[in-house]
Amino acid sequence: MATFTDRLFDRIRRTNSRVCLGIDPRPEAHPLTHPDRFGGDPAQTARAVVHYFQAVIQATHDVVACYKLQAAFFEVLGVPGIIAMAQLIADVRARGIPVILDGKRGDIGVSAEAYARSYLGNGVFASDALTVNPYLGGDSLEPFVAQAVRADRGLFALVKTSNPGSADLQDLRLDNGAPLSEHVAGLVTRLAEPHRGPSGYAPVGAVVGGTQPKALSRLRTLLPYSVLLVPGYGAQGAGAEDVAGAFDADGLGAVVSSSRALTYLGEEADFAERSRAAAVTMNAELGGVLGL
Amino acid sequence: MATFTDRLFDRIRRTNSRVCLGIDPRPEAHPLTHPDRFGGDPAQTARAVVHYFQAVIQATHDVVACYKLQAAFFEVLGVPGIIAMAQLIADVRARGIPVILDGKRGDIGVSAEAYARSYLGNGVFASDALTVNPYLGGDSLEPFVAQAVRADRGLFALVKTSNPGSADLQDLRLDNGAPLSEHVAGLVTRLAEPHRGPSGYAPVGAVVGGTQPKALSRLRTLLPYSVLLVPGYGAQGAGAEDVAGAFDADGLGAVVSSSRALTYLGEEADFAERSRAAAVTMNAELGGVLGL
Repeated sequence: MATFTDRLFDRIRRTNSRVCLGIDPRPEAHPLTHPDRFGGDPAQTARAVVHYFQAVIQATHDVVACYKLQAAFFEVLGVPGIIAMAQLIADVRARGIPVILDGKRGDIGVSAEAYARSYLGNGVFASDALTVNPYLGGDSLEPFVAQAVRADRGLFALVKTSNPGSADLQDLRLDNGAPLSEHVAGLVTRLAEPHRGPSGYAPVGAVVGGTQPKALSRLRTLLPYSVLLVPGYGAQGAGAEDVAGAFDADGLGAVVSSSRALTYLGEEADFAERSRAAAVTMNAELGGVLGL
Repeated sequence: MATFTDRLFDRIRRTNSRVCLGIDPRPEAHPLTHPDRFGGDPAQTARAVVHYFQAVIQATHDVVACYKLQAAFFEVLGVPGIIAMAQLIADVRARGIPVILDGKRGDIGVSAEAYARSYLGNGVFASDALTVNPYLGGDSLEPFVAQAVRADRGLFALVKTSNPGSADLQDLRLDNGAPLSEHVAGLVTRLAEPHRGPSGYAPVGAVVGGTQPKALSRLRTLLPYSVLLVPGYGAQGAGAEDVAGAFDADGLGAVVSSSRALTYLGEEADFAERSRAAAVTMNAELGGVLGL
């Protein structure tokens, strides 16, 4: 199997899309999946969520680079939600499309190994990549790196997130004058460097929000071997110009994720086509700024 | 319902125990739960894990203050593992014993709200407290605080973990000379302060490892409203003297967790009684040092 970055870049080239469509189920947000439709039954609601997003995936599979599932929105639906998550992961992968599980996991030792096997192994939650939290340090990330290298998967370590509160820790100045996020970028680069592939990129990527373009451009240079997963587009305020700095000279090296701007568009039966149209528009915005 | 801290302190007083028994399923670690026994069937293996830990809980319920489930070890067992996690959470709560889910969750906005409802709400994963990761900043923790206050639950924010790599971020010196972990302690205290109860403690606790006694004592003073969840006892190297600084003058304000030193003791049928004996010994060690 090709490496994760090779598969992702192949998808970007073939679709000419840098859009990562975020799958964040909110059953109450559409009549077809509203729990009231099923008398509040969690299993029927979760099945409806699967059908809803299967339709979105069918309508968008040739205009997006990849999909990202937000684990929180599945976990809150209980066991049927977890099953729905496994089903949608499998559906995306069966199409040969990379799927990122946005679980922001992080733990130490054997617990980190268990998370790595859960989401980057061969079980029912097996994804192409997982988002991970670096607060516990380098040895907490190493099991994820090892599993990603072993199984041709990827990880995206949180470096600089898109929320205002990201300043609370990530923007703190260290005694050398650099913000914490840049130190974390150095840690990620140290973990990535030994695993660079022919593309120049390693399976050790980074999450860098699109809402602060200056920080994004600076972190791009500090993360030379990392594919960037850039959230914050659309609903959170970032536009195409803001995220342009995430890409390399070939227009590769990053994907831009959006959920709220690409899903739950209206209450009508044409929701899937509207997701497609929104993804096409977003990708055209990115392509316009990148001159592609 | 009493607040989480009141319920926890009541348990500590009634059991005279400060031990938090860690439930970290490793099916391969005991013949009764070994997957080979069930031809590798995940559902049967997960059911055996439930029976194994139900026996441990039955044997230890009057000698420990609370239980902590490590989510990673359940997630790696797939959907049956998730069901097993829900069952064990419910079993502990049905006994009126506080249960902490060690999920180290962390996300922003509506995703953080979804995690808070998942683990501190009324669904199948409803626990008394959840561990959370602070890297995304104060606004990422607020939904957990709000849900904990609303539903009389608790959270434990990672401040200083017990692994060697915790130095990579948590020990970094900021431009004011303080380590990052102390800044995070300040953030946690800011979130906790408005929610102090009659005990003086808020439902906003902190994880502070026992492997660095000096840091632990210092962080205790910086976290005056936070119950401390102290990992690292036993297998990770901390002893009773090392964790004594976590407690207040009344011997309250903290619980010390251990999994590997308290479970999977031998391959015999007396595993549950051996867990009880180990918990009693560990608690006696703590009581000896605390003069209780």
